[in-house]
Amino acid sequence: MTRTRILTGITTSGTPHLGNYAGAIRPAIESGKAADVESFYFLADYHALIKAQDPALVQRSTLEIAAAWLACGLDPRRTWFYRQSDIPEIPELTWFLTCVAGKGLLNRAHAYKAANDRNAEEGLDADAGVTAGLFMYPVLMAADILIFDAQRVPVGRDQIQHIEMARDFGQRFNHTYGGEYFVLPEAQIDDSVATLPGLDGRKMSKSYRNTIPLFAPSAELRKLIAGIVTDTRMPGEPKDPEGNALFELYSAFATAEQSAAFAHALRGGLGWGDAKTQLFELLDQQIAPMRERYDALIADPAQIEAILLDNAQRLRETYAIPKLRELRSAIGIRPLTAVAAPATSTKAEREPAEVAPIVKQYRESDGSFRFKLTQGDTVLLQSVGFANPKEAGAWVAQIRTGAVDVAELQAVVEPIADESALQAGLSALAAAWALAQAH
Amino acid sequence: MTRTRILTGITTSGTPHLGNYAGAIRPAIESGKAADVESFYFLADYHALIKAQDPALVQRSTLEIAAAWLACGLDPRRTWFYRQSDIPEIPELTWFLTCVAGKGLLNRAHAYKAANDRNAEEGLDADAGVTAGLFMYPVLMAADILIFDAQRVPVGRDQIQHIEMARDFGQRFNHTYGGEYFVLPEAQIDDSVATLPGLDGRKMSKSYRNTIPLFAPSAELRKLIAGIVTDTRMPGEPKDPEGNALFELYSAFATAEQSAAFAHALRGGLGWGDAKTQLFELLDQQIAPMRERYDALIADPAQIEAILLDNAQRLRETYAIPKLRELRSAIGIRPLTAVAAPATSTKAEREPAEVAPIVKQYRESDGSFRFKLTQGDTVLLQSVGFANPKEAGAWVAQIRTGAVDVAELQAVVEPIADESALQAGLSALAAAWALAQAH
Repeated sequence: MTRTRILTGITTSGTPHLGNYAGAIRPAIESGKAADVESFYFLADYHALIKAQDPALVQRSTLEIAAAWLACGLDPRRTWFYRQSDIPEIPELTWFLTCVAGKGLLNRAHAYKAANDRNAEEGLDADAGVTAGLFMYPVLMAADILIFDAQRVPVGRDQIQHIEMARDFGQRFNHTYGGEYFVLPEAQIDDSVATLPGLDGRKMSKSYRNTIPLFAPSAELRKLIAGIVTDTRMPGEPKDPEGNALFELYSAFATAEQSAAFAHALRGGLGWGDAKTQLFELLDQQIAPMRERYDALIADPAQIEAILLDNAQRLRETYAIPKLRELRSAIGIRPLTAVAAPATSTKAEREPAEVAPIVKQYRESDGSFRFKLTQGDTVLLQSVGFANPKEAGAWVAQIRTGAVDVAELQAVVEPIADESALQAGLSALAAAWALAQAH
Repeated sequence: MTRTRILTGITTSGTPHLGNYAGAIRPAIESGKAADVESFYFLADYHALIKAQDPALVQRSTLEIAAAWLACGLDPRRTWFYRQSDIPEIPELTWFLTCVAGKGLLNRAHAYKAANDRNAEEGLDADAGVTAGLFMYPVLMAADILIFDAQRVPVGRDQIQHIEMARDFGQRFNHTYGGEYFVLPEAQIDDSVATLPGLDGRKMSKSYRNTIPLFAPSAELRKLIAGIVTDTRMPGEPKDPEGNALFELYSAFATAEQSAAFAHALRGGLGWGDAKTQLFELLDQQIAPMRERYDALIADPAQIEAILLDNAQRLRETYAIPKLRELRSAIGIRPLTAVAAPATSTKAEREPAEVAPIVKQYRESDGSFRFKLTQGDTVLLQSVGFANPKEAGAWVAQIRTGAVDVAELQAVVEPIADESALQAGLSALAAAWALAQAH
């Protein structure tokens, strides 16, 4: 069974609030439990720099968000949970994509255009106060996605355009360098995801300063809920649950039965004070065990640091380093030893430069998983079909790292046409691997 | 004596030609020999991707240019000679600078505007066919320069603007994050540097396809020189050396006496055929020993690869890794263990986040070299003055890597105010160092 890769980035420029939990953390952790999914969650600290030029905020937010996801049940052994800035291959790929990305396409990004429009309204130059970070954000985001060949990216409707840009950049790269280097991602829009109201009734959002911190201590949570804006209807007067902030918050955490009972009570005249008490009790009860884990995690940042570093290291070894090695080879950044030495330095007499060998896993139309090792147009190795992609993947990993035993390999591949070319190819791969490790 | 850092990038998208040699390689190697200079020469393969989307060309060009500089006498033990793509800190810094670079400033870059103008002439959209790579090129170039605190960058007049942009980005970073993180570079314009004519009399340039490869074999060199465009004046007719391509090429390689004799001969009626023979002999004689080294180097790419990797590794350890650690700390990308754990998770009760310690070497107004270790506004350590910057630097390196012996340290610093704060600072530095090494 091939698992679908789903990738989610969380910008580290704030403190997790109830809206983040109901709208992002809870559904992501739930969907990450499916057996047919390989999940990637990352702390987008490079993205945070675009808006937050406050180091203490970025630092603190990274800790809080990491602790929050772990406290809410994210399992860092079953899902990839990492910090963007621990994967140096991401900024490198950002540059590669920058070199194929059309500037005209970036001009049309919503977030950038919105900044232009705000400037126009104030009679300023279109780019006044706009950094290249805001402008280039879609390219960094494309690198985040494409480096892991993520197939689905859960986003809000306002982010669909960025996924389309990632597809565009990936496609241009594939086309420019003539290969299927990137899987093209698709936006996954889930309109059923809850949007919570904040303290003032508007959407709960950091930018409105109307949030309820997810892990506020009980007493603070009670006080914040008591401050939620309501109308002046007195206890005893019927209240319409529809569109009511207290009811919406309650429903996001309650069972259907609990919600129905709460609605019934409001229609029956439940006072705002009592309604707030009920909301507080529901939330506090659900949050309490997670808050306890959160407080313990926050008190032990070394444990979180170790989890993030461990994930980043395994992720780099499994995906990022081999991916970049392949991409570097595709664009011509190759060890010099991979260049065929010409017989003379006369231009006309030069041999065509040798291309680096590439090992790839793929799925055949018969459903079987295979791998092959190619060098330019030459197929050095062609595997038989495997029912299990992991089995094929294990061979690929051995070939990539130079740990393969050619004698054993012969049991799972079609007859080898040119054994010396194969040996040279394997050595080149192993040398490139060693080089990447040294970086 | 403080050495001035001079940095030169060479884009790897062509074969070195005579113009590169006289205009760049020869003067750079000459000036790199000065004792008061620390030279940085790098193969700008990330830059090559902007224009050259031909992998074999990038790969081949990297080999040829590296071999050419070495063959021409560059000493990779006395000067830094490295491949841009071997320094992963460069694309990372590019992103940091992207987040402070004003988009409005980038809009005004000459190379980008020239592309806009060409499109306008053809009635196309201003950004038609323009990649983000062309647009963002000045930011990558700023990262190349700022990462090593280069003080001088030898450039042609058309590149002055890019150096000014590097200064602007560095200054903005310094200002945004409140510190002297970057030395601001200055353009070094040398109008005396030779510009050679090409085969057609125009400036020798890859884009005009009128180049003479620096290491063309003798027979090819003779043939190319024979093809240089001249006028129809016959042998015996006087010829004006002024503005004559043969004379300009000759002068770029001859002593003043040889040039004068050649000019005299032309005025006296030397035939074009004989003049070409004299030019060929002068060039071939000078180039022959370098060509021999070049051919040997090209035949042994592993040797060049080893030189480049060795330089990159030492350069990263000496400058790039500590620099990025300092910059990451400045912007808030810090190990989570560097965050002070708050007593509770209540926002109001949180401690201010701790900043990472920084060790710096500097020069006092009395000419002595000193170092200090600071954490935020607190000075943990203040050295005495050293006459030799290397001595101060050795201590700094020991402190950075956690290899310092505090008892020994006490002999070269002023009395330590708070030993436990110092120990904590040294541990934090050592942990960050270990982390950077693991990357």
